[in-house]
Amino acid sequence: MLNKKKSAIVLVSGGMDSALTAAFAFKKYDLAFLHVNYGQKTEKRELQAFHDIAKYFGVKKKLIVDIGYLKKIGRSSLTDKKIKISKADIKSKKIPTSYVPFRNANILAIATSWAEVIKAEKIFIGAVEEDSSGYPDCRKKFFESYNKMINLGTKPDSKIEIVTPVIGFNKKEIVLKSFELNSPVHLTWSCYKNNDIACGVCDSCALRLRGFQQAGKKDPVSYKVIKNYL
Amino acid sequence: MLNKKKSAIVLVSGGMDSALTAAFAFKKYDLAFLHVNYGQKTEKRELQAFHDIAKYFGVKKKLIVDIGYLKKIGRSSLTDKKIKISKADIKSKKIPTSYVPFRNANILAIATSWAEVIKAEKIFIGAVEEDSSGYPDCRKKFFESYNKMINLGTKPDSKIEIVTPVIGFNKKEIVLKSFELNSPVHLTWSCYKNNDIACGVCDSCALRLRGFQQAGKKDPVSYKVIKNYL
Repeated sequence: MLNKKKSAIVLVSGGMDSALTAAFAFKKYDLAFLHVNYGQKTEKRELQAFHDIAKYFGVKKKLIVDIGYLKKIGRSSLTDKKIKISKADIKSKKIPTSYVPFRNANILAIATSWAEVIKAEKIFIGAVEEDSSGYPDCRKKFFESYNKMINLGTKPDSKIEIVTPVIGFNKKEIVLKSFELNSPVHLTWSCYKNNDIACGVCDSCALRLRGFQQAGKKDPVSYKVIKNYL
Repeated sequence: MLNKKKSAIVLVSGGMDSALTAAFAFKKYDLAFLHVNYGQKTEKRELQAFHDIAKYFGVKKKLIVDIGYLKKIGRSSLTDKKIKISKADIKSKKIPTSYVPFRNANILAIATSWAEVIKAEKIFIGAVEEDSSGYPDCRKKFFESYNKMINLGTKPDSKIEIVTPVIGFNKKEIVLKSFELNSPVHLTWSCYKNNDIACGVCDSCALRLRGFQQAGKKDPVSYKVIKNYL
């Protein structure tokens, strides 16, 4: 069978946003999945979600990259054992302790290197501007600037572009769209803290639960604690 | 003793260009050295040069990062055992086989993460536009674009800028300036192929030797073969 679809890389962390992003890309492209371990505390659980989601979409071309140096560089609660994962303060405008300095730029550089080798034309990333309040490298204008830099830093015949299909969504819209596009929400993992049952109280759990509550949907994942975030 | 100098990171590969770049930065900044292993064949020898150069400049703050994933992604003669290091064709305008896709973008992303943590204001990189014929991520306009991207992708109070003091130099000028600024040329390593005595025939050796020959200087490093490249 001839496959004439063009190739695209999807950054799949294992969370809900990246699974939905894969669902968007699935329609048009032949997919390759990239997962990055950066020494986060929930590394193993996220990797399992990555493989589950790849299986769901029938993706065989997978690359798992270890960038433990981000842990070495430190200063994020996601990677530094000395910093506690803070409880959610989802109304705060401050940059959260979970921020890994310049993480997306590192991950996208890897994706671009791979894209150049496998001749992928698009790199899909499930960044969300609104809900990622305060992460500077999650903003639309950051990705626009990154695309210009890619254009200048790759071979002239490479046409690689970062695509952010969920950038403008809030978590409620992510939830609704996930159901609409049959994204495998049940296979995803969002908790920053636990590897077995989601804690329900870290930033990431809180944002996810609020999204489901706003959308009037039930989250198929189990939680230790479910608060009302409405 | 109070040290009021501002902090800067220097990317030190171990080669002549990066040593000279360190010599430029040394005058004004408190230095931190970053070295990246990306699975290149001369990894160990370059790392030794890195430590020797750090000692020469009295730099104690060092970070060595392993990005073996570039080897996994492959397709460069510097990292892929299946591709032979080609003999120098320094007049060619084609992108050489030693090109590692998007390598500088990967390395600079790491440097920027580190700079944000240690509050360094500058990242010095010894990229050379002319002699690196055909490496798209060695060009001045690539670094200008990267700086804009950094500005958008880091915290608002971060003021990180990439500086390329030798970008406009040819190898002859690198050699002359190295002697002028007392850069430790004797401690550097440029050969892409060997770990003991430089081969003298790979792209990197050929460019280096031609530079010394044009400058009318003797290279303190030993070679297996020394051709006339004038």
